[in-house]
Amino acid sequence: MALIVHKYGGTSMGSTERISQVAKRVAKWARAGHQMVVVPSAMSGETNRLLALAKALSPAQVTQDHLRELDMLAATGEQASSALLAIALQAEGMPAISYAGWQVPVRTNDAYTKARIESIDDQRVRADLNAGKVVIITGFQGVDDAGHVTTLGRGGSDTSAVAVAAALKANECLIYTDVDGVYTTDPRVVPEARRLKTVSFEEMLEMASLGSKVLQIRSVEFAGKYKVPLRVLSSFTPWDIDIHEEAASGTLITFEEDEQMEQAVVSGIAFNRDEAKISIMGVPDKPGIAYQILGAVAQANIEVDMIIQNISKDGKTDFSFTVHRNDYARAMDLLKAHVLPSLGAPEVMGDAKICKVSIVGIGMRSHVGVASKMFRSLSEEGINIQMISTSEIKTSVVIDEKYMELAVRALHKAFDLDQNQA
Amino acid sequence: MALIVHKYGGTSMGSTERISQVAKRVAKWARAGHQMVVVPSAMSGETNRLLALAKALSPAQVTQDHLRELDMLAATGEQASSALLAIALQAEGMPAISYAGWQVPVRTNDAYTKARIESIDDQRVRADLNAGKVVIITGFQGVDDAGHVTTLGRGGSDTSAVAVAAALKANECLIYTDVDGVYTTDPRVVPEARRLKTVSFEEMLEMASLGSKVLQIRSVEFAGKYKVPLRVLSSFTPWDIDIHEEAASGTLITFEEDEQMEQAVVSGIAFNRDEAKISIMGVPDKPGIAYQILGAVAQANIEVDMIIQNISKDGKTDFSFTVHRNDYARAMDLLKAHVLPSLGAPEVMGDAKICKVSIVGIGMRSHVGVASKMFRSLSEEGINIQMISTSEIKTSVVIDEKYMELAVRALHKAFDLDQNQA
Repeated sequence: MALIVHKYGGTSMGSTERISQVAKRVAKWARAGHQMVVVPSAMSGETNRLLALAKALSPAQVTQDHLRELDMLAATGEQASSALLAIALQAEGMPAISYAGWQVPVRTNDAYTKARIESIDDQRVRADLNAGKVVIITGFQGVDDAGHVTTLGRGGSDTSAVAVAAALKANECLIYTDVDGVYTTDPRVVPEARRLKTVSFEEMLEMASLGSKVLQIRSVEFAGKYKVPLRVLSSFTPWDIDIHEEAASGTLITFEEDEQMEQAVVSGIAFNRDEAKISIMGVPDKPGIAYQILGAVAQANIEVDMIIQNISKDGKTDFSFTVHRNDYARAMDLLKAHVLPSLGAPEVMGDAKICKVSIVGIGMRSHVGVASKMFRSLSEEGINIQMISTSEIKTSVVIDEKYMELAVRALHKAFDLDQNQA
Repeated sequence: MALIVHKYGGTSMGSTERISQVAKRVAKWARAGHQMVVVPSAMSGETNRLLALAKALSPAQVTQDHLRELDMLAATGEQASSALLAIALQAEGMPAISYAGWQVPVRTNDAYTKARIESIDDQRVRADLNAGKVVIITGFQGVDDAGHVTTLGRGGSDTSAVAVAAALKANECLIYTDVDGVYTTDPRVVPEARRLKTVSFEEMLEMASLGSKVLQIRSVEFAGKYKVPLRVLSSFTPWDIDIHEEAASGTLITFEEDEQMEQAVVSGIAFNRDEAKISIMGVPDKPGIAYQILGAVAQANIEVDMIIQNISKDGKTDFSFTVHRNDYARAMDLLKAHVLPSLGAPEVMGDAKICKVSIVGIGMRSHVGVASKMFRSLSEEGINIQMISTSEIKTSVVIDEKYMELAVRALHKAFDLDQNQA
């Protein structure tokens, strides 16, 4: 007997028919002898419907008072779907009880609309589990110290599920989603892409931050912090498939070092074309220059991803960075108007037609030559590398966006991702 | 400066446009210097939408577990509308905060779907009022001692508003509704019917129980118990009418004895045709007979309204009572099958084509001859009285339903209701 947490997204909870399917699946797990906790999202579309009503009444405001009410409003979506799931389980003959965040309680700070979980009390939930009930806990929400309702922000239900699993020391947290796991790369780009049976926490973190939108990045961080075994699996398999088959499906995100012993050097290829690159050439190489440039950008609320500064020549250096493509024009205008004049007439160049391709793998830590293999492979395809950035388990390059698919396919093949069993 | 409670029903909260109007009206009262507490219902249709989802998942069950989840589900409707009203008030530049029942808290017993309010903590609300905020409290719901969400049952928002007003010792509780007050009788039947400027608590109670569906009867009881001045007024007047005109509109339900000094003898005529009459003739007049008949009826969950037993003759008596018309056939079948056989072959007669007409007036206490004036007036119209029942401030008669409108008009005129200023 294990303590298992299931998390179901809005699509899985999208209609009474689908809620019924979720109830049948959860009941199957409970009948197999597991203690079950379920964290559902709101029915798909519900959160948007509620926030549209708020928007019709008032322009968006950033006052605490306004954000507090948005949270009161949005939190009703998960409370309703949780109660409906409890009702569906009871209809299956399975005792069940639903709790809103404040009832558990799931304690958060008071950063309305983007609160962070601080602690979860497990007493009430454990008592119900011991009494043989399935316990349903609303995702996405909590309560602050003053008793106000908070929400964790979009996608927060993943984080709720992982936090609940951590608090209860659950044996595993299963995130049911509309993909059947984590892949070596996007199967729409590389048909040979394989589902990973396991992936390390650190790799998952890099993949998530690089645009693999399988899991909300905060939930992966949380899982890493509390060593919660996390499994991403499909909510589209029939509810009545064999439980052992289901339990082994999807991708397990692991935290045990020795489980990663046989890990491939590179686990996956991530990519995105959401970025644009900006280079300032001939910048005087003196202290404070980086801040002078990026400080202005940050003040305009423009987020910077990669930053590269090469060694200087003749007291001048070139300074490059990438921003989200949506912020590109604004960033260029800002630099030309306010930054360049004070830098001694350097030149600014920008390019929005770029993409970032990254290889991710925990094995890179202990294997030399991984980056150079990446560069060779790209060079063999005649792809010019514009920028390079590395971390312990990731190497990213910026290239012309027209080569993106070619690069991803070449790298996928070069690192044998279509053949190895991860 | 006064402390005022406003209550708005589902129609008033039915769209963002209407919520905006409510916000403007409340803001007007707040700007006039009043401390404002608002108790809204869910947006019209929302509660039904939620309960239909539950019904699609599960047949109705009466287990505590099932009813608990129905309350968790239904309570989201008021939480959402309350947050929306707070947002609308903030958009008007009026500081506002919404609280769900559990946040106040509004404590109830644990009779899910029909809970009763036990106490309301005023501390948090008072602090916000003193800080200059409009406080919005969800109608219809509360929390039990174990921290489970409860609802008060349909129409419970009226009761919530009155209970909140009582807890805060509010100067007045204004119930905004789709009628503009309490009338001497239904204006659709008697065009001369007048709106009462004031009506006593006891009269209102009799009117409510007799089918004037202006206010939920429990809320009137509550208001009587705690002496909350209650005003019924229209939510359809423009929000920007003069506040003094608005404050004097509708009907005030009073509890002060001296305010009733000049009260008319009869305040209003109530009527309904929801009932059917059943008479058992020739019942042996011995102890236990009433229980033998009505016990069986009550066991079948059939509610009985009027009960009349006349003095006996030759050891036999006639026993009559009325039931809701929907229960008439079932009650007749039950009596024939299970009750009559044991009563020594009496005869049962029934009539569903009846109506009940009542005169209500606190002045009846101190004025003799009111009932006889009623009977004379009916007799002058040639209307035969089938049953009579009286209480301290009410006299009801059962007559053929075809005479209902005639009787109501005659009585309305006989007691000068179309002329006197109440």
